[in-house]
Amino acid sequence: MTNKDARTPASTQNPTETSADGEAGKSIGWHKAYVEGPRPDLRVPVRQVHLTNGQSVTLYDTSGPYTDPLVETDVRRGLAPLRENWIIARGDTEEYAGRPVRPEDDGIKHTSPRGGLRNLDAVFPGRPRQPRRGREGRAVTQLAYARRGEITPEMEFVAIRENVSPEVVREEIAAGRAVLPANVNHPEIEPMIIGKRFLVKVNANIGNSAVTSSIEEEVEKMTWATRWGADTVMDLSTGRNIHTTREWVLRNSPVPIGTVPLYQALEKVDGRAEELTWEIYKDTVIEQAEQGVDYMTVHAGVRLAYVPLTANRKTGIVSRGGSIMAAWCLAHHKESFLYENFEELCEILAAYDVTYSLGDGLRPGSIADANDEAQFAELRTLGELNTIAKRFNVQTMIEGPGHVPMHKIKENIDLQQEICDEAPFYTLGPLTTDVAPAYDHITSGIGAAMIAWWGTAMLCYVTPKEHLGLPNRDDVKTGVITYKIAAHAADLAKGHPGAQEWDDALSDARFEFRWEDQFNLALDPDTAREFHDETLPAEPAKTAHFCSMCGPKFCSMKISQDIRREHGGSRAEIEEGMAQKSKEFAAAGNRVYLPIAD
Amino acid sequence: MTNKDARTPASTQNPTETSADGEAGKSIGWHKAYVEGPRPDLRVPVRQVHLTNGQSVTLYDTSGPYTDPLVETDVRRGLAPLRENWIIARGDTEEYAGRPVRPEDDGIKHTSPRGGLRNLDAVFPGRPRQPRRGREGRAVTQLAYARRGEITPEMEFVAIRENVSPEVVREEIAAGRAVLPANVNHPEIEPMIIGKRFLVKVNANIGNSAVTSSIEEEVEKMTWATRWGADTVMDLSTGRNIHTTREWVLRNSPVPIGTVPLYQALEKVDGRAEELTWEIYKDTVIEQAEQGVDYMTVHAGVRLAYVPLTANRKTGIVSRGGSIMAAWCLAHHKESFLYENFEELCEILAAYDVTYSLGDGLRPGSIADANDEAQFAELRTLGELNTIAKRFNVQTMIEGPGHVPMHKIKENIDLQQEICDEAPFYTLGPLTTDVAPAYDHITSGIGAAMIAWWGTAMLCYVTPKEHLGLPNRDDVKTGVITYKIAAHAADLAKGHPGAQEWDDALSDARFEFRWEDQFNLALDPDTAREFHDETLPAEPAKTAHFCSMCGPKFCSMKISQDIRREHGGSRAEIEEGMAQKSKEFAAAGNRVYLPIAD
Repeated sequence: MTNKDARTPASTQNPTETSADGEAGKSIGWHKAYVEGPRPDLRVPVRQVHLTNGQSVTLYDTSGPYTDPLVETDVRRGLAPLRENWIIARGDTEEYAGRPVRPEDDGIKHTSPRGGLRNLDAVFPGRPRQPRRGREGRAVTQLAYARRGEITPEMEFVAIRENVSPEVVREEIAAGRAVLPANVNHPEIEPMIIGKRFLVKVNANIGNSAVTSSIEEEVEKMTWATRWGADTVMDLSTGRNIHTTREWVLRNSPVPIGTVPLYQALEKVDGRAEELTWEIYKDTVIEQAEQGVDYMTVHAGVRLAYVPLTANRKTGIVSRGGSIMAAWCLAHHKESFLYENFEELCEILAAYDVTYSLGDGLRPGSIADANDEAQFAELRTLGELNTIAKRFNVQTMIEGPGHVPMHKIKENIDLQQEICDEAPFYTLGPLTTDVAPAYDHITSGIGAAMIAWWGTAMLCYVTPKEHLGLPNRDDVKTGVITYKIAAHAADLAKGHPGAQEWDDALSDARFEFRWEDQFNLALDPDTAREFHDETLPAEPAKTAHFCSMCGPKFCSMKISQDIRREHGGSRAEIEEGMAQKSKEFAAAGNRVYLPIAD
Repeated sequence: MTNKDARTPASTQNPTETSADGEAGKSIGWHKAYVEGPRPDLRVPVRQVHLTNGQSVTLYDTSGPYTDPLVETDVRRGLAPLRENWIIARGDTEEYAGRPVRPEDDGIKHTSPRGGLRNLDAVFPGRPRQPRRGREGRAVTQLAYARRGEITPEMEFVAIRENVSPEVVREEIAAGRAVLPANVNHPEIEPMIIGKRFLVKVNANIGNSAVTSSIEEEVEKMTWATRWGADTVMDLSTGRNIHTTREWVLRNSPVPIGTVPLYQALEKVDGRAEELTWEIYKDTVIEQAEQGVDYMTVHAGVRLAYVPLTANRKTGIVSRGGSIMAAWCLAHHKESFLYENFEELCEILAAYDVTYSLGDGLRPGSIADANDEAQFAELRTLGELNTIAKRFNVQTMIEGPGHVPMHKIKENIDLQQEICDEAPFYTLGPLTTDVAPAYDHITSGIGAAMIAWWGTAMLCYVTPKEHLGLPNRDDVKTGVITYKIAAHAADLAKGHPGAQEWDDALSDARFEFRWEDQFNLALDPDTAREFHDETLPAEPAKTAHFCSMCGPKFCSMKISQDIRREHGGSRAEIEEGMAQKSKEFAAAGNRVYLPIAD
């Protein structure tokens, strides 16, 4: 490899760099750095890995300001509103009083004898702000801008991040093949893009539930997930303090935040699905849009007529949102209020540039139910809704399964792309077998890699706790890393420009026994280092030209290095010089392995 | 599901069963059981899972007598020689004095001042035995029997295990599309088959190295790996006590044992590859064949002319055996002694029914090197050697890569099947990216599932320690479970008869909140139970009709059960009854969730 930056992928400009000691580009390891954009307030974060051979590798970075030692972060104040000036400069949005926050937004009942917010300390103390929305008659979504031919600073930002031209970004968004989720009320994010022509993205779910977890834990899970590579985070809280938890998460998140508004709406009616109304739902969507939620899962494809299609399934409806809507339809024997009011919902989402994630409420929950009539009936409806959303300039992605055996995966992505005009597919796994609870990050990582290779734009992670319990910190990390593997494997298989340079840099380090470089280039440097040290803990082993697998006596890599030394060059040169080299090799004592002390 | 045995797969006969309390078919959980064959000494072990609903599920079982509470095992005596009478009854083998065991077999140098076996306690104390081999002029391999139209007890055994007719087993072996590795000197094994028409198999590697590990640890790793589902085990020891370690492993192993004889041969010349000779190698092969090794990796495809093809690779030669042979060729500038003496080697292997695993010494060690000229040149030679081996009635499988990005995987299996006349492919992974050291069980599990779907017959596991260190007990388990997932996902995708019944049984249990059944049906019941209990530890939670994800208030599965209760039946009945049912539903209080105490 020549002494150039290998990056995966970023611009060809040299990133500036910040490190703990302020000394740029010297020390070995990895540091936060920035690629400067065409304007001073556009700096794209990257992870800069400095190798022991003097080279450096630039990697995509999702970790936000938390990994920048020069930025002081305070979860009580929130992150700096990077995009605020861009949004204001467009002049098409306005601040307004907004919807008053009510106790029931946090799951506190009016009738509760305790009354009011249970935990006043939990209210987010950060800077006061008013919500913002599009001015009357102005289309303020990235889709609207792209369709008008405008390249926004957000698009320029992701162009640098993805190492493509801003025009490619604009085109993909305009065509509806990519989304750039960026609510005008979430100025803290570092813009990112979701589409099949870009790097495959990974979402991590967090969220408290009725059973366990606190606000602090959820904020910590969000920063932890992005630290390991989550591109977006969904807050799926269902317990108490939903509004407040979300506020803390949003104000501190450098990545887009997704939600399922239906979950909160259900809490507002105390879990009685049949008491849900369009008004309660709509109010919840506005509440969340004002807070800054970037994309919302909407299960508007679960229509009344599809509910019976699930009756003879092995595992019925496993999507929580899907079953809530099914229960509502069942109780009222009426068409879904989400389907019926979809156009009005589009108008609301458009005003804040909230992106749709059209939920697959009827996704299969078992191998037996994969690709059945219920699933595909809903998919066809999602295609119809996608068309409507686009009419309202609402960015849209489509959610996908679920549990699907390998031979039925491709049909899912092919159908979705056809039915939904190539709108980004956002899949949960899929899980390729049901028999391994506690390992569903792996059963689903297999399916995720395959479906991403075939075109899925974003993968929703699955943790080892899937089906069993709520993920803790370790589970979140394992889920994210597993899905980064699936995403990167897909980037490689798709031939994404620059993707292989990362593998090449690590393989070069491996071949040359640069252990520290291998660790620093790894998706998870900490665990790689820890595993190495378990077998060969001594410091010298990290520079030794052998590893614990073969030991010091005989080493495959060492022999290969000898071969390269002797046979590097053209085929002709190699053939010609081989006999001669063989003699030299013998004369030098046939040193194909290192001397040992044994 | 009807009240029948769902099995994956076994015969339709009812298994007899042994359990700790001797009470058959009553208690909940899983127990060792046996399916009786057509003769009294042919009993096929299965894992019988008893469900709380009175049904039972029969699963393939690799764990040997260790999980049978009625069998007393003693690692110092070894397992009972199940196949001994079958072998003797054929009358085509004979006992003979055998090759004397020498100190250097255990890595003790003649010149060592310490002399003799370092650790006399380590010598296997089990019953005395003489080695056995085919009588002059008799072809004693399963391939020879199959070609003659004979169905051996071993074939009957695997037919029951795989739930196919014995004739299918015979045909597949006769055609060279499957192997049944069963050295006449390893009568302890429970026969198994490797071929694309059968369940995908998993191999686990164990073995000490120059750096670490003891005999006891290796035996323990073997029983541990088979406990979790390893179908074969390779002993890749390279340190001291290689002969003795192998003896202990073989005498205690219920699964076929594979080795790479070259590793031990190299130890005998003190790690100096250039001092290897055909005589030393041949002597080592005989030594191991006499002990009972069932299959041997032979890197006879690494020819002199291919070595230069690796010179400009990113990671050269990463196969240890491949690099030893390359070093030898390089040192002598001569054709490989393995290639030159391949026919004589065939004669030796045939005499013991040792199966070839033709090694891919030039497999790629990085994404960059996948599917290159070196790799495919060797594959073509393996095809040529496969043809020769078959002439000598030697069962043969072919080893495959390595590091391969997803889009290049299919070419590997397709080429191998074409070039090697559909001989079973036995692949290491492949790893689909290089960037995740410490997670290579996952990077490779993705590739393994895909290549197995497309036809690979056996997968060599990769543990989280790959590239970093030697696997410990936990790593072995993680590697095996990950690969069982890949193998089963492939069985599903191939539509293997009965494979989905396992998934269906677990999904039924999930849908009906039968937590204990979910655990007992899981690939790893212990971890599934542990994860569940982390969030909901109380005993009642294991029978509760909810889980920690949604909590007791609202539950997707519960709603689906309501839907099924109301809408089960034909489409017409459903449509017709829907409005009526809806009214009943409302009248009953819209109970789509459980009452809660909150």
